[in-house]
Amino acid sequence: MTRLVMKFGGTSMADLERIRRAARIVAAEAKAGKRVAVVVSAMAGKTNELVAWTDGAGAPAAGIPLSDDEYDVVVASGEQVTSGLLALTLRNMGFRARSMMGWQVPILTDDAHGKARIEDIPGDQLSGVLDGGEIVVIPGFQGVTRDGRITTLGRGGSDTSAVAVAAALDCPCDIYTDVDGVYTTDPRIESRARRLSRVSYEEMLEMASLGAKVLQTRSVELAMARRVPVRVLSSFVEPDENGNLPAAVGTLICDEEEIVEKRIVSGVTMSRDEARITLLGLSDRTDAPADVFTRLAEANVNVDMIVQSQSRTEGAVNLTFTTGRRDAARAAELMREAQDQIGFEQLRIDEDVAKVSVVGVGMRSHAGVAQTMFRALADKGVKFQAISTSEIKISVLIDAAYAELAVRALHAAYGLEAV
Amino acid sequence: MTRLVMKFGGTSMADLERIRRAARIVAAEAKAGKRVAVVVSAMAGKTNELVAWTDGAGAPAAGIPLSDDEYDVVVASGEQVTSGLLALTLRNMGFRARSMMGWQVPILTDDAHGKARIEDIPGDQLSGVLDGGEIVVIPGFQGVTRDGRITTLGRGGSDTSAVAVAAALDCPCDIYTDVDGVYTTDPRIESRARRLSRVSYEEMLEMASLGAKVLQTRSVELAMARRVPVRVLSSFVEPDENGNLPAAVGTLICDEEEIVEKRIVSGVTMSRDEARITLLGLSDRTDAPADVFTRLAEANVNVDMIVQSQSRTEGAVNLTFTTGRRDAARAAELMREAQDQIGFEQLRIDEDVAKVSVVGVGMRSHAGVAQTMFRALADKGVKFQAISTSEIKISVLIDAAYAELAVRALHAAYGLEAV
Repeated sequence: MTRLVMKFGGTSMADLERIRRAARIVAAEAKAGKRVAVVVSAMAGKTNELVAWTDGAGAPAAGIPLSDDEYDVVVASGEQVTSGLLALTLRNMGFRARSMMGWQVPILTDDAHGKARIEDIPGDQLSGVLDGGEIVVIPGFQGVTRDGRITTLGRGGSDTSAVAVAAALDCPCDIYTDVDGVYTTDPRIESRARRLSRVSYEEMLEMASLGAKVLQTRSVELAMARRVPVRVLSSFVEPDENGNLPAAVGTLICDEEEIVEKRIVSGVTMSRDEARITLLGLSDRTDAPADVFTRLAEANVNVDMIVQSQSRTEGAVNLTFTTGRRDAARAAELMREAQDQIGFEQLRIDEDVAKVSVVGVGMRSHAGVAQTMFRALADKGVKFQAISTSEIKISVLIDAAYAELAVRALHAAYGLEAV
Repeated sequence: MTRLVMKFGGTSMADLERIRRAARIVAAEAKAGKRVAVVVSAMAGKTNELVAWTDGAGAPAAGIPLSDDEYDVVVASGEQVTSGLLALTLRNMGFRARSMMGWQVPILTDDAHGKARIEDIPGDQLSGVLDGGEIVVIPGFQGVTRDGRITTLGRGGSDTSAVAVAAALDCPCDIYTDVDGVYTTDPRIESRARRLSRVSYEEMLEMASLGAKVLQTRSVELAMARRVPVRVLSSFVEPDENGNLPAAVGTLICDEEEIVEKRIVSGVTMSRDEARITLLGLSDRTDAPADVFTRLAEANVNVDMIVQSQSRTEGAVNLTFTTGRRDAARAAELMREAQDQIGFEQLRIDEDVAKVSVVGVGMRSHAGVAQTMFRALADKGVKFQAISTSEIKISVLIDAAYAELAVRALHAAYGLEAV
């Protein structure tokens, strides 16, 4: 029999009424003859409450080892509650169902508490329960170390749990969420945005890391590595009077080869989570940039775009780079602390920037993609301050005030309203 | 090094401030050189919320096996949260601490989900962690079956968890609660009630089952069977500026042999959770009472007191018995359904009754205890409707209106204000 993993997020588990709606969707797939494993998040808001309690308990005193092991014990309880409640609701609807906690499956992780990585999911026991005809409900976000301690995967980790369970069961994964798929761009910015029926893993990975918040980046990486077909579907569907789901719409995330009509550009993304730092009058010693980026790397600050330009000062350059906004203050402080060793005249920090990107696997084989982008931006008078590219994306850093304008201009320039 | 189990209830875990107070008490014992295992309840009110959610999820549909296994998954999460939070708080105060869930210790139970009984606690792993110098925090109320499913012990089961852990570690158990010990009677009824410094297991067992709500009956049974010394202490104490606890007061529950000055009567208890059912004009066939009590036993209705008296009807008797108030309606219905088979004329049910009892191991060797009781009640004009006795207690059923009066009269008659 066909197997299927279905995942429901926190808004789909927010109260008993929503849990019943999720249960009706699960029931429809079970009635259609599928062996279903469901992965669930905690009730919306619950994880924040639990995290706040652990914060309130305070940090370990001097001499006590720092570990997030007990944070994990507290925070993992939210998904335990919803998985039990969904199993009970399914029984109420006439299905045999049971929960399996992370330690029962088991979902084996490393011991990096609070941000653990899944290492292995031995599928035997889970398969046995599924083949016995029971629907299995698994709490997302949680796992267990090999020596039996509870772990969590970091915020948003339930998507990753779902894909990992699907990989273990060698089956597809349906992610039910509050949007009905992946769009060419954010429909709140461009009303002509269209839902993509298919998108490749590579494109989705770029979109996820560039600010499209449909899926966790890690879950897409894992789906790509294990070749798990992932569908993004709306949890606001309702089975008909016979308990059947409407024909699946949503977006399938799959291998590039399974996408027959390849688009040059699939989507336009925008992120405001950027900050630009410029070191003016940096010594033109050849090792000065290396010094800068080594210091940042050692402090775990990720740098995205880098631009070097001539300075007005003789024998000096200006070095501009971008970081996540959260890291910007720390990056600036690191630079100022080492101003003499690095050797620069002045530091400027600008958070009023946005990164706009176009993503598409078709770029690999089509010239002129960058040209179209730059012309579209120039036509609207949008100047860009930095550029970065990969094989399948081009990003530009612009003044934040122009972000939405740029998204709409690019969406039109690549004809995405007609996808 | 000396070991100690400490137990804190839901009001002591109600919020972070109370958890910090409990942590200071634990810290004082750890600083005094004890190896401490702490057993905790869920935050006050949390278990009710979780139970309400499972109720809201509904009962299994026809054909789906009835089991409280998923109820246990949901409800056990409350203690998981507080045990993690207490461990974090202890670390914040400079102590090495960790939680161990029911499945990690493990606390092995039977598979009677929702009301499981502890079968075994292999103490090796727990002892190892304690001997390594860590304070261990264990969620009360929860356990695990031998095939790895989460169980709960039934409401109030955390006392039982604590005593069972103490038995496994072969050490005493301190129960911190919102009263500072066991009293000769309820101080809200008789202000001259005195705290007992020691009480025997047998007396405590009678008092617990007769309505003194300090400890769960099951936990006292277990303490008696395994000879675990249990102290009941107030959680409202505060260590001094050096982190030392005030000299222990409270009540020690121990072997009768350890109580040097034996009292004839240790306490007076009162319960309103009673109902009286009378079958008037019951056939005087010798097997008629057996017929009645067999039907009640088969429906799991516990009967406490039984009185048979002459009926006005020739060849008939009146049979009076008492049940818990919750069971009374069902008991009456069972009787009425079988009225013809049993053979009685009329049924009367009266919930306006109370059971007042005196308890004391000294009764075994002292005559005149019952006489003192009956005289004291008669002096106040209190009539009794039924009597039951055990080796160490005498209970009378009276009109509920006289309950407090009777308690005060008996408290004075046995001189308990001077204990």
